[in-house]
Formats: sequence, C-alpha cells, structure tokens
Amino acid sequence: MREVAILGVGQTPVREHWGRSIRDLAVAAGRLAMEDAGVSRLDGLYVGNMTSGRLNQQRHLGVLVADFLGQWGVEAVKMEAACGSAGSAMRQGLIGVASGEMDAVLVIGVEKMTESPFSETTAALTGAADADYEVVHGVTFVGLNALIMRRYLHEYGYQQADFAPFALNAHANGAKNPLALFRQPIREKDYRQGRVVADPITLYDASPIGDGAAALLLVPAEKAPQAVRVIGSASATDTLSVHDRHDLLWLAAAEQSAQRAYRQAGLGPNDMDLFEAHDAFSIMAALSLEACGFADRGQGVRLAQEGAILPDGRIPISTMGGLKARGHPVGATGIYQLAEATLQLRDAAGEAQIDGAQVALAQNIGGSGATIVTHILQRP
Amino acid sequence: MREVAILGVGQTPVREHWGRSIRDLAVAAGRLAMEDAGVSRLDGLYVGNMTSGRLNQQRHLGVLVADFLGQWGVEAVKMEAACGSAGSAMRQGLIGVASGEMDAVLVIGVEKMTESPFSETTAALTGAADADYEVVHGVTFVGLNALIMRRYLHEYGYQQADFAPFALNAHANGAKNPLALFRQPIREKDYRQGRVVADPITLYDASPIGDGAAALLLVPAEKAPQAVRVIGSASATDTLSVHDRHDLLWLAAAEQSAQRAYRQAGLGPNDMDLFEAHDAFSIMAALSLEACGFADRGQGVRLAQEGAILPDGRIPISTMGGLKARGHPVGATGIYQLAEATLQLRDAAGEAQIDGAQVALAQNIGGSGATIVTHILQRP
Repeated sequence: MREVAILGVGQTPVREHWGRSIRDLAVAAGRLAMEDAGVSRLDGLYVGNMTSGRLNQQRHLGVLVADFLGQWGVEAVKMEAACGSAGSAMRQGLIGVASGEMDAVLVIGVEKMTESPFSETTAALTGAADADYEVVHGVTFVGLNALIMRRYLHEYGYQQADFAPFALNAHANGAKNPLALFRQPIREKDYRQGRVVADPITLYDASPIGDGAAALLLVPAEKAPQAVRVIGSASATDTLSVHDRHDLLWLAAAEQSAQRAYRQAGLGPNDMDLFEAHDAFSIMAALSLEACGFADRGQGVRLAQEGAILPDGRIPISTMGGLKARGHPVGATGIYQLAEATLQLRDAAGEAQIDGAQVALAQNIGGSGATIVTHILQRP
Repeated sequence: MREVAILGVGQTPVREHWGRSIRDLAVAAGRLAMEDAGVSRLDGLYVGNMTSGRLNQQRHLGVLVADFLGQWGVEAVKMEAACGSAGSAMRQGLIGVASGEMDAVLVIGVEKMTESPFSETTAALTGAADADYEVVHGVTFVGLNALIMRRYLHEYGYQQADFAPFALNAHANGAKNPLALFRQPIREKDYRQGRVVADPITLYDASPIGDGAAALLLVPAEKAPQAVRVIGSASATDTLSVHDRHDLLWLAAAEQSAQRAYRQAGLGPNDMDLFEAHDAFSIMAALSLEACGFADRGQGVRLAQEGAILPDGRIPISTMGGLKARGHPVGATGIYQLAEATLQLRDAAGEAQIDGAQVALAQNIGGSGATIVTHILQRP
C-alpha cells in the first residue's frame, strides 16, 4: 500500500443554495480541488452523499459529476453511509490510490437539503437509523441523540448547561471561516436561552443542515512530497440501533477506528494538534473526545469546560466552526472536515489558523455512532 | 495488486418477497456466501443498492447488514450507481482485497422493490437518468431505452420482432434456474403478442423488477487456489444524459471497461465461453454484444438471430435467465450476474450448465449505458 497525499482542496460555502443544483455544487468544489492540485485528468471519482435520491430526485451521482467535470470514461461511484458518507468516500478513494490502481482520485462530498419541505428532510435523515426497530417507534434522529445525552447527564451528574463550551467554541471558530453557515459568535446567555429541540438537546446543541460540497484531490505521496499526507485511515461500525449497544455512552466504533488509525500513524492522542470532531450534537463531541482518547469516560464535557478544546487549548476541536457553525450538509461533512484539517496543516486556515499544527485528526460519524471513519493527516 | 478469488456464493430467489425485509434478504444471501466459503469473520462489507432510501425508508445499509450478520466493528459501506450498484460494490470490494488492505470481503447486492406503489418505484428508478435534463421532460427510464431502440431499428433496418431471440433465450434459460422469477419458456408467438410498454419496447423486451439479494465472498487468490479467479475488473462512465452521447448506438463505457478487462486478463472476446449481459432491455443486450466485441456495429441482433447467444452457441448469454427472466432487482443484479458466472465455472449451474466453460464475462450497466462495470472470471 502506497502512502497517499492530499494535493488539492475545494469547497463551496455552506449556505441555503437555492440557486444552485446539487450538480453545480459538486462540480464547483471538484473543479476547485483539481485546479488547486493542477490536475486535469482523473483516474477515479468517489462521491459521498446521503439524500439526493429523495430530496433531489437524482441518484447516480458518480457519473453525474464525472460527466459535468468533463471526465468522460472515468471510473466513478457514489458511497452512502448516512452522515458518514463523505468520510466513507474518502476511505475508498484512498484505498484506490494506496492500492496502486489509481494515481489521481477526486473525492467529493455533496448534499443539497434546504429546498425540500422539513417533513421530507426529516424523513430522509431518519434513514440513518433503523427503520424497523427505531424509527417505527416514532423516534427522530435528534430524538435518539437526546436519549443518549439524557443518559450522559444522569450517569455522570452533569447539567445540560455544562455542554455550553462546545457551542461557544464552534460558533467563535465559525466566525473566522468565510465558508461557514453561521458566522456570529454566541454568548453563554444565548446558549442558555436556546429553545428545546428534543429534551435535553436545545437549539445550540444541534448542528444545522445546509447545502454544500467539498472536494479533495488524492495522489500518491511520492508524487507530491510537498502535500499534506494521510498517515492514518480506518473505518469501523457498531450496532445500527442505539438500544443494541452494550454501552450507550461509549462510541465503540470511534475507539476502534481511531486506535487503528493511531497504530498506522505510530502516534497517539497526545500527538494530535487539532481534532475535527463530528459535533452534529454536543453530546457526540463529548463522546468522541472520550472514545478517541482525549478524555476519560465521562470527562469529555469536563475537558471542554477546562478550555482544552479552544484554539489555544490542548486539543482544539471544530477549528473552523465544526458541524455546529460551519453547517452540516450531511453527506458532505466528512470531506469538509478533511478539507479544513488540510488547510490547517498548510497554514492556510486564515483567522482560524492553529499555530504550528503538525498533525490533525478528523472523524466522521454516520448514524448515532454506527459508522465511524477516522483519518489522521500530517504536515509534509 | 493481488489476484482475487470468489470463494463463496449466496443468492436468494428473485421473487415478490412480501414477507421478507431488505435486511432479511441481504443477510440471508450474505450468510449463504460466508457458509459456502467457510469464512466466519469479515474484514470488509460492501453493499450495492439503489432505492432503499425511498422505497424501504432505510439508508445506511452497510452497517445495517454488518450488524445483523454479527460482524460488529467491521468496515462497511454502501455503493450506488443506479442499476450498476452491485457491480460497483464488487469493483470496490475487489480493490479492497487486491490492495492487501483486507483478506475477507463480503459483497452483497440487494433490492426490495415490489411492496411500493408503482408510481414510487418508477420515480425512484428515474433517478438513474438526469433529473434536470432528461426526467424533467417527462421521459421514463424505459422511454429512454425505447428511443435508443427506435434509432437502432431505423439505422440498421431491423423490425421490432427481430429482437425476439433475446427474450426466447432468456426465458428458456430462466426455466432452468430455480432462483429465477420467471421459469416458463416463451414462444415466438408470445413475444409477438407482447403489449407495448414504450414503443418499440414491448413486454418481452423489458426485464421485470423484483426483490432479492446475491452475495460473493472474496479472498486473495493465493489463499484459495481452488476458487474461481477474477482475472479482469474495470469500470467506466459515459455521459449521464443519452442525448449528450456522440453516438446513440454505441456503449462507449462498455467498450472501454471491457477492453481494460480484456487487457488485464490477456484475453479477448473470442476467449469468452459465456457472457452474463445486462439485458434490462433487449436493445441493451444487442448493444452490449457489439461494444464488447462479439458482433460488429448493428450486428448484435443478427448474432442473436443466428443462434450464437444460445447455450450451445458461440457466446451464450443470460445463461441462467438474465435480467429478463431471472428478474432485475436493480441494485442487486450485478452480483447475481457474477454469482451465476461463478456457478457456471464451478460446474454448479445445474440444468443451465454451459459444458466446459472456462472463462466468463459479466457486465453490469447503470443508467442507459452511463456507468458500466465489467468483470472476467476464470475457472481455477
């Protein structure tokens, strides 16, 4: 297996893009990544997306995007693993290059959600959970996360307001990212006044949906010694239904995929300079910090309260806004995370730059911890 | 890249499985393949499916199936490329093993379509075409194929009835396959009386949808010298919209992927003993025969009329019924084709056995020729 490098990065802003189709968004991000890399011909195209069949009446996104990038003949396919779709596309694209089968692979995450009625969007998103054993009972996706958060509060003796640092950090960081959906810092008072979405999850514990696309151009590292390198890549799954977990408060697949990635990299949590965590809900940020070895069980919230997740903290998270403030176009998120980590390692993150960042962890979650893809990137 | 072998095969019958969920079907086929291979622990799971988000209200099939196969922790993901979804899953699973990243990979194609109202199914299937430039005009998927067939008749001077040999062969072969949806031979008279679906496509020119799952267990060939080997594997794309093709009557992506696979195998069309063609419509069978080098331009129908596609002909096609008679559970079809080709090369195809078959070609098509995945299998 060859080492792989990220030679190009492209992103559209996360917005309500009412004037742009899913095709337009994906092609725009893809072109930016190809231009950034100076690559004009692809050997493979991997697209991550979750809901286009239902929300955009368009399946078959691999060839759709290949066609409008002018890459006729190229191998192209779409991956879906709920909100972990884009991370999964990265994982397969990486194997394509690492295997020697392909030399130039474009990986795109794209989602266009905001044109659809909320009922349609909510129904499409519940497809991430188990239709027969979870959704049948009427639970929504945010409802499942609320059950987990409720258990966390009960088990470890926290209050809902203890989660505020996650939202404050994400919104402060999003304010420094011109591509973020929300660009205004929030105050502790705002967080406390957030209306309940699904008790105990309030408005500022939940990430917003959005439209957007992000892309990476992958090549063998030997051909691009100056490019950010991927030194760890692993994916793992847990039970799909939350009620089937041995331990409701432990993201086993996050731990497994992170441990595999750490082993590949020959590094551990203490070596990470930043962590693009999947903070779809603040409870997921807390559990991710614990599963990836940054905090002991039940100490993820404490870590945030101590300021360790801030840009100048021990392990900055959501450095360009995270899902919470950059926005969460579900099947695109995994590539946004990797794009942001790459910019950090290029010293190209602008106002959001983490000084001297050498190694970054990015973790993309599908479902309530069911599919988890972890990557570790390193400055060349 | 290591050579890959197919150590296990599992299939459910193609039926209207009203009593079985999409999960049940996929898990049943997966278990059969694992038992056939004598493998109990997977390194990777690749699921091909097209419409589950809309028709079964269930996305995230990778982890859904992994979970109910008892493979907690395994890497799992779903691929979608319209009716080429399962072939695409095979392609990525194969790269996973060939790369050295994984040693035991299960590839499953699954689709459950017959419980939904026809309007929903038709809408889901049109997602294979271009929503903005084709579907917006009201064309259905069969309508697009009808336009291509109409042009074929005009250009080469055939009559619709000249396509009868494709349907007669497929139904005669399906009668010998206990897993096929349709198990009755048809007569020339039946074909001629087929009612029009989308002129000039009649009932017997079109494959039926169905529910079913098929699975393959892949391992490195060096670990299974007695197993059927994959000696060619390639995927290519064309324009998504049919009207954007330079040549309406040439499946460029079929030619490209077949030529790549032939080169890998060091073989050509004359070396193939059978061809599991993507006969979703009889026009696609004719064009596939031409693009893969079995017939000159416009001679695919002539080849069928001469009897070359029959079990004792020069290049038997649809040997166990094809999409036409085995049935076309769209996102599962690519693995059914490969499963059938594997059985042929094991001398395990029962009444449908092609005597002495050494090498088989299988080709899976997504959209009207937009995504095409080609594999060549060889008896060990």
